[in-house]
Amino acid sequence: MAQPSPKRFLCPADFVWDDVVIPALKEDWGRRGDITSRAIFDPDHICTARFVAREGGVICGVRAIECAMKASGKNIDVRHHVQDGERVEQGRVIATVTGPVIGVLEAERVALNILSHLSAIATKTSKYADVIAALGDQSKAKICCTRKTTPLLRSLEKYAVQCGGGVNHRFGLDDAVLIKDNHIAVAGDICAAIDKIRDVVGHMVKIEVEVDNLHQLSLILDKMQDKKIDAVLLDNMTAQELKQAVEMVNGRFILEASGGVNLENLKSIALSGVDLISCGALTHSIQNFDIGLDIDS
Amino acid sequence: MAQPSPKRFLCPADFVWDDVVIPALKEDWGRRGDITSRAIFDPDHICTARFVAREGGVICGVRAIECAMKASGKNIDVRHHVQDGERVEQGRVIATVTGPVIGVLEAERVALNILSHLSAIATKTSKYADVIAALGDQSKAKICCTRKTTPLLRSLEKYAVQCGGGVNHRFGLDDAVLIKDNHIAVAGDICAAIDKIRDVVGHMVKIEVEVDNLHQLSLILDKMQDKKIDAVLLDNMTAQELKQAVEMVNGRFILEASGGVNLENLKSIALSGVDLISCGALTHSIQNFDIGLDIDS
Amino acid sequence: MAQPSPKRFLCPADFVWDDVVIPALKEDWGRRGDITSRAIFDPDHICTARFVAREGGVICGVRAIECAMKASGKNIDVRHHVQDGERVEQGRVIATVTGPVIGVLEAERVALNILSHLSAIATKTSKYADVIAALGDQSKAKICCTRKTTPLLRSLEKYAVQCGGGVNHRFGLDDAVLIKDNHIAVAGDICAAIDKIRDVVGHMVKIEVEVDNLHQLSLILDKMQDKKIDAVLLDNMTAQELKQAVEMVNGRFILEASGGVNLENLKSIALSGVDLISCGALTHSIQNFDIGLDIDS
Amino acid sequence: MAQPSPKRFLCPADFVWDDVVIPALKEDWGRRGDITSRAIFDPDHICTARFVAREGGVICGVRAIECAMKASGKNIDVRHHVQDGERVEQGRVIATVTGPVIGVLEAERVALNILSHLSAIATKTSKYADVIAALGDQSKAKICCTRKTTPLLRSLEKYAVQCGGGVNHRFGLDDAVLIKDNHIAVAGDICAAIDKIRDVVGHMVKIEVEVDNLHQLSLILDKMQDKKIDAVLLDNMTAQELKQAVEMVNGRFILEASGGVNLENLKSIALSGVDLISCGALTHSIQNFDIGLDIDS
Amino acid sequence: MAQPSPKRFLCPADFVWDDVVIPALKEDWGRRGDITSRAIFDPDHICTARFVAREGGVICGVRAIECAMKASGKNIDVRHHVQDGERVEQGRVIATVTGPVIGVLEAERVALNILSHLSAIATKTSKYADVIAALGDQSKAKICCTRKTTPLLRSLEKYAVQCGGGVNHRFGLDDAVLIKDNHIAVAGDICAAIDKIRDVVGHMVKIEVEVDNLHQLSLILDKMQDKKIDAVLLDNMTAQELKQAVEMVNGRFILEASGGVNLENLKSIALSGVDLISCGALTHSIQNFDIGLDIDS
Amino acid sequence: MAQPSPKRFLCPADFVWDDVVIPALKEDWGRRGDITSRAIFDPDHICTARFVAREGGVICGVRAIECAMKASGKNIDVRHHVQDGERVEQGRVIATVTGPVIGVLEAERVALNILSHLSAIATKTSKYADVIAALGDQSKAKICCTRKTTPLLRSLEKYAVQCGGGVNHRFGLDDAVLIKDNHIAVAGDICAAIDKIRDVVGHMVKIEVEVDNLHQLSLILDKMQDKKIDAVLLDNMTAQELKQAVEMVNGRFILEASGGVNLENLKSIALSGVDLISCGALTHSIQNFDIGLDIDS
Repeated sequence: MAQPSPKRFLCPADFVWDDVVIPALKEDWGRRGDITSRAIFDPDHICTARFVAREGGVICGVRAIECAMKASGKNIDVRHHVQDGERVEQGRVIATVTGPVIGVLEAERVALNILSHLSAIATKTSKYADVIAALGDQSKAKICCTRKTTPLLRSLEKYAVQCGGGVNHRFGLDDAVLIKDNHIAVAGDICAAIDKIRDVVGHMVKIEVEVDNLHQLSLILDKMQDKKIDAVLLDNMTAQELKQAVEMVNGRFILEASGGVNLENLKSIALSGVDLISCGALTHSIQNFDIGLDIDS
Repeated sequence: MAQPSPKRFLCPADFVWDDVVIPALKEDWGRRGDITSRAIFDPDHICTARFVAREGGVICGVRAIECAMKASGKNIDVRHHVQDGERVEQGRVIATVTGPVIGVLEAERVALNILSHLSAIATKTSKYADVIAALGDQSKAKICCTRKTTPLLRSLEKYAVQCGGGVNHRFGLDDAVLIKDNHIAVAGDICAAIDKIRDVVGHMVKIEVEVDNLHQLSLILDKMQDKKIDAVLLDNMTAQELKQAVEMVNGRFILEASGGVNLENLKSIALSGVDLISCGALTHSIQNFDIGLDIDS
Repeated sequence: MAQPSPKRFLCPADFVWDDVVIPALKEDWGRRGDITSRAIFDPDHICTARFVAREGGVICGVRAIECAMKASGKNIDVRHHVQDGERVEQGRVIATVTGPVIGVLEAERVALNILSHLSAIATKTSKYADVIAALGDQSKAKICCTRKTTPLLRSLEKYAVQCGGGVNHRFGLDDAVLIKDNHIAVAGDICAAIDKIRDVVGHMVKIEVEVDNLHQLSLILDKMQDKKIDAVLLDNMTAQELKQAVEMVNGRFILEASGGVNLENLKSIALSGVDLISCGALTHSIQNFDIGLDIDS
Repeated sequence: MAQPSPKRFLCPADFVWDDVVIPALKEDWGRRGDITSRAIFDPDHICTARFVAREGGVICGVRAIECAMKASGKNIDVRHHVQDGERVEQGRVIATVTGPVIGVLEAERVALNILSHLSAIATKTSKYADVIAALGDQSKAKICCTRKTTPLLRSLEKYAVQCGGGVNHRFGLDDAVLIKDNHIAVAGDICAAIDKIRDVVGHMVKIEVEVDNLHQLSLILDKMQDKKIDAVLLDNMTAQELKQAVEMVNGRFILEASGGVNLENLKSIALSGVDLISCGALTHSIQNFDIGLDIDS
Repeated sequence: MAQPSPKRFLCPADFVWDDVVIPALKEDWGRRGDITSRAIFDPDHICTARFVAREGGVICGVRAIECAMKASGKNIDVRHHVQDGERVEQGRVIATVTGPVIGVLEAERVALNILSHLSAIATKTSKYADVIAALGDQSKAKICCTRKTTPLLRSLEKYAVQCGGGVNHRFGLDDAVLIKDNHIAVAGDICAAIDKIRDVVGHMVKIEVEVDNLHQLSLILDKMQDKKIDAVLLDNMTAQELKQAVEMVNGRFILEASGGVNLENLKSIALSGVDLISCGALTHSIQNFDIGLDIDS
Repeated sequence: MAQPSPKRFLCPADFVWDDVVIPALKEDWGRRGDITSRAIFDPDHICTARFVAREGGVICGVRAIECAMKASGKNIDVRHHVQDGERVEQGRVIATVTGPVIGVLEAERVALNILSHLSAIATKTSKYADVIAALGDQSKAKICCTRKTTPLLRSLEKYAVQCGGGVNHRFGLDDAVLIKDNHIAVAGDICAAIDKIRDVVGHMVKIEVEVDNLHQLSLILDKMQDKKIDAVLLDNMTAQELKQAVEMVNGRFILEASGGVNLENLKSIALSGVDLISCGALTHSIQNFDIGLDIDS
């Protein structure tokens, strides 16, 4: 597939990268750093090495390379050959680093682990996005992430979803409201719960409600003004039910389909007319993207 | 499969759990915590909820449930029904929690994310371990993890590998020496490198050397006394080469096979006679293990 | 004025209180803690003390008392007599604490500083809220905070605004979009900027646009669909201009008035029909609320 | 009023600024940073902007500008036009910054919040200091801060008091002894308490005692040698009582007047002959000092 | 020697202990905790163990035992048999702990390292204090610590000096002024330097000046009012010079002797009439105090 | 003694130095930094100063000088004249620093405290190493450290031991197994304990067993295969017993002698034929190494 046209992603600020990369380096370094390299090499032994894609896919996380190299405390020069969101073929050199071999090897594994992990998410997401894109005007749906992310990697993983062509759901429990089945199970009355929330969360917070069936949906349509909620999550519905829901809502709310989405059923869900299709597997079930470091001998 | 006989795992100390769970909660809570639950429920509204396996497999990470519940700052009672390393069937209740609904829901997603992630690793590992176990006396090999772990989760993931029946490789760059292809590429002479290392790392540090072919292996066998190194990693060799290597080494060093291990080729590798079979995919390529929280209405 | 009817506030989770109280205690304790009390009193010398309002107003921050007392490492019993959001008269006892005098005095100043600061904000906000409330059905406006908060106290200060009868604007740069004059000054075209943003921020993020005059407003009304943005901030407009804006928008977007709001001009702004009136002075210009600790001799 | 002659202030070390500015930026940035700017602008879009005083007063905190700009991770050039402690008129440009617009806008609000807050304290203090200065030789009193500071901002606020012409009281519970009314209420005997303290705090720690009336003062004068204590705090006394106290003490101890000090009663207190007049309102009751950022379009 | 009569020490607050003990435990635990104990023992295996003095001396740091045991995350009961500052003979049981053997052994080494280190300082100090005490009324001198402390242990080490019968000098660079030889070497004029300092540090900060010879001392006596400085440090002077200095100063300032103090020259220094004798070796040159843990088999 | 021939030490990575130096600076700086220097000197007052050995010995820790100078936030140039592990005579200039006097003096004490402490350990270790070196081929023993290190300084102290000619034991409870007397006291059966451990710790972890007498040793020799354990610690044995142990083991395991080692008995222990002689006093009982800072006037 050809290189995608330039597209802006909402890249996390530098501190987000550092807040993952530096603790990850300390996790790998333990009490001393890389004792193998430190025992073998002189501090001023310089090398050049290349991060190489061992398979084809969408790259995400090149910023982690320079974060890791810089944090290893050495003057290591990093040149990027690929940008986040770019699709590469096997063998493509993603970046070249030049500097003290101790520093390069002390940062290698962490840089690779993050870059591979995020590229795996971007690549997986791109496969879902491609399925929908192939439908052309038949679907306006976008593939969307969830909060089923790896602990401590949420902002980076959500960025990887963007790089793969997806969009982001809320980032946590505090930046948007999602009234889920467990809330309703305990609270009882959906509409009373919505009223309570709208009253206290402020005008800059969006509210989404999860419904499990069309009856719950009709209840909301009867009782709720458009200003009270912004979106409805249709959980575990058939493509047929989703279609009915789209007709019932008729544009009043954003509609999100969720539950058991995979590459097989994605097309039929996308054709139902929903706005968003969210899928936990984008971030919680990953086939690693293979990237290696080739060092000059 | 029947419940495994009781087996001791080297469970990480409590602080290891807290060092993941508490930052993960703060990642999810952002600036305020769960605004949905806080807007709907009274602080003294009590509920009971059950962590339920939605599929069969090996559980790991039940400690994360009480860490998360305790850190959400509420008096939440946690009762465990399953222990780490235990194989469960779909529908099994893993733990029951009782306490304020705000606290339970504020901790739910993080507890689930960690428990599911670790159980996924344990379950995947158990499939590899089962293949080898089925060989009975034909193989003494153990399935082993690598440093290709998720950033910031290494100690927990390595514990999950144990719970699935695998064993652990080194935990970082500082607790053992592994002379890899990149070290050799830069250093040139393997044996000189080993000498330099043995001289400075202390008597409590093990040394392993990676070889890519039988020629490198024979070089080591010729030049190295047994006390200098402890193990040899045979990288990307065929089952036939592995068998030859086992014969050449004849018990002088521990032998580890690595590179491209999967459920298909695992049996032939295990039959080669190596001691360890390491596999990055145990931790970097995961199919999430589905666990849900059922809350009483 | 009578005690307000019970009202739910979106209270920050416990960790938010701890993240302010504990560093504040360490700031006050320095290298040793309270050397005066530690030199005079025995560790088991018990006292009882009361937090007393020295003036009338709305209380906010009682949770800080137990956070501080608990963190001083002693078994100190805290009984609350007033809840956050409650209006008290001078002399009212807010809480009673009983425990080791060293612990009580070591936590006293920090507890008082936070409780007084938040109560000052709640009390100030309540004066603004009362002006609008007195207009009855003539105004649906709510008084609203800004990001002009004290460094490191934002979540607590925004909670105090709620306790005083106000509502909250966004909590930071990442949970909602506000396109301000400086963005427009640099970007040039408002509508192009909105398009770029809507494309990448996800469906759970609200977008507000600041306009300085009615011409800019009409531009947005012409070009923007309702789904693209959620609110418009009318900056530094006269009451007359605000009224015109309300008519022009006719309910399509939420309208927020801002700039130079004070107790004198508040009524005329509120009568303009806007939904929100935001005021930085609620949090950045404060007359301390006087609370003291009376200790039994 | 003319520019003050150059005066040295005891400026906190850089780490003190960083310890406020960086957490404050993270508070504002949340999980991603400024999503508005990041969605609109290219990373290499450069701008120039000016911090401008919107009113007249004494500036404090220019160091916060470069701390914030540097921490936003971009190459932003900062030129200072005003120094801390300098009195400016409305419209004065305090500093000019040039660099990537994303970085500038991501740091803007935090830099403004700190600079405005500290300048407000400096300006308020300068009004008190001016009242005393106008008395010329009739008063040697200095205006002094307390521990009623904003949580986590104490060192910066105390520096702002200096910049406004005031002096600093102790910085916390551990760097000097202040025996207050509550200590005496519990301990009973002032003099016994002083003896206990002098015995253990070391020769580099000053001791001040609070007295509520002249009787307590005379008790101390009778029983205490000059070496045992260094200062006496005269709490809530009338100007007449203060005058009597000054005569009674006759230079043996430093005398500090405290309690309900304001711009109205300050002159009469200063004329009483006390050495210091402390005032919590310098730091806990602030009218924000208005500073804005003007960005070039 | 008999048990000393009860004496109050200025014990650091609990957070000071925790800030050393918890990082020290994490330093010892690394990535997993005590793998030896965790591999051998069941979590519910209970033991009883005793901290026993293997030699005679003054104990300091018993608080570290419960900090460490509590932080190891187990319900371990700690009973103290000796208090800080108490002199013990060889074989004395300092504390008894009962709880899970994993927890006890995981905390053992850190508890012992801190307790032994602080008891070594207390014991060494007591030897110096005893020499002076033996002089009776012939000397009012007290033995005093310096800032030559072990990194990160300053507050605890200064407390240990107290427990051994010594007193504390300043705790850092910010709580008192000490104008040292290097300051004077660069600044040139001592008296000008003192004036600059007195002007900005506030009335609660003490000022001490180091002089290397009697000429510098006479200069200060001529030029300085008593209120400007509080103490003079006489560096590396002979007993004869110290005596002269005492006569010259005649009680106007506190006098501290410093430089090369040891058990041999201490008596003659103490007889010179100085108030304080400071000695870096109390904290930087230590003979470990031997304490062991005896566990019941 | 002549300059030692160049020898590689396993120097800790930069972060290890920073993790000690920066908190140590903050400990010394408290709330403001060096108030003495900040009150006297202008920020742009430049000086040159030299770190000078006041006695002869082995230097360790020169990296701490630049860490401290850099962290004091000033442009200070550091030139090294001596490397870690180098033996110097009294008067030798170790490093020269040039930069703002405030920065130099604010970092001075911490740099000196760390450099002196580590050089003291290196110097002490070198005395032990010299004793063994003098035996030539009569002993292959190496002097070795323990876990009796100063809290929070372990990695640096173990590095200092290397610089003095010693070798390192394990770095904590998690990187190697040491079955000690207390483990055996509770566990009962040594061999059963070893089996449990070998089963779970992984192939990259070494195992050492402590024995108190030759009977325990013979038990291990009878029951244990060589692959199960790696080393035996002979605790508190006489030189004669050590010799017997060496004969009994005959090269099957590494042998470490421990307990009461000092410069007097070291030679006879070394002649016994053991591989390692470990000595807690290398790190817990130190005579400070005197280094001063000479600043140009």
